Amino acid sequence: MSPEHNSTRHDRDSVADVALALLDEVGLADLSMRRIAGRLDVQPSALYWHFSSKQELLAELSDRITAPLLRAVDDDVLPLARRIRDALFAYRDGAELVLSSAALGLGSAHAQTALEHALRRADADSPYDRAVALMHFILGHSTLVQQRMHADSYGATASGVGDDATAGLDRVFDLGIAAIAGLERIRS
Amino acid sequence: MSPEHNSTRHDRDSVADVALALLDEVGLADLSMRRIAGRLDVQPSALYWHFSSKQELLAELSDRITAPLLRAVDDDVLPLARRIRDALFAYRDGAELVLSSAALGLGSAHAQTALEHALRRADADSPYDRAVALMHFILGHSTLVQQRMHADSYGATASGVGDDATAGLDRVFDLGIAAIAGLERIRS
Repeated sequence: MSPEHNSTRHDRDSVADVALALLDEVGLADLSMRRIAGRLDVQPSALYWHFSSKQELLAELSDRITAPLLRAVDDDVLPLARRIRDALFAYRDGAELVLSSAALGLGSAHAQTALEHALRRADADSPYDRAVALMHFILGHSTLVQQRMHADSYGATASGVGDDATAGLDRVFDLGIAAIAGLERIRS
Repeated sequence: MSPEHNSTRHDRDSVADVALALLDEVGLADLSMRRIAGRLDVQPSALYWHFSSKQELLAELSDRITAPLLRAVDDDVLPLARRIRDALFAYRDGAELVLSSAALGLGSAHAQTALEHALRRADADSPYDRAVALMHFILGHSTLVQQRMHADSYGATASGVGDDATAGLDRVFDLGIAAIAGLERIRS
């Protein structure tokens, strides 16, 4: 099979489509280039016609996961933060994947940029630093909650973790967002 | 080799010692029970005399990573938060490991308990919720920064991420901690 044949049969978009569907099935730890290639019925080397590295492919998936935020340009900070969290929850291990791409400085910063704009509209001081801090909080919170939900789904959490321990998580999320955005201070 | 022989040769502590040293060498993704057993020169099944699951072993490692916080009972919130971050940084993938154990409700909550006590001493309202939110922020921030530092060490971050992008991270950390703790509000 020639590389030309592969590259016409699959384009960058269709590789990313398959990888994102596979993420939902197997999770981030098992999302290997070999497995993605197998699903596309090509050799792993064929994927490198479209993505120079696995990190570049994961960055594309990160952009797709956060793409809904491109339509949230007029949201205020708290509804926007909730929308970011929900976008991360929409794919298995979505929070962990977006966190890892952000750590490497790869992928677009849709979510952080939207937060910074919302903070500027609210006249927050240090809007850039606050947007970064908000992203770190949202990513930490969402990664932890998503891992807990996944473990709950097959009964792997410790006894006592569950309804009681998760009931307060939305309240903790809102408190953290309002505090970092400076909204708590403005209100008081 | 009888199980009795294994269990006298290695106790729970020595298995955890070896696992923690191996974490630093190979990272969390490659820290398998098979590899830990190999280092101890026993069959993987022998590990289950001491830990009922890999999750239980990881929870023990999480407790060891956060053990320095047991000596930080009198710290104020910001120095305590920095001490937690530094404890996570002391082991490769320390932040990610502690985040995963916390997600499953496993391991001791040394760090969160110390934060809650510090918040109570500072008369913060909602000290429990703020302690949870602080942990989510510290874990998200530290996981991201630790992944970036590791990638930097072998040149895997995108160009432009590096000195400039990381210079502000300590400032972002302090801002996030002060805001979530309610210290920002108190000061203003």
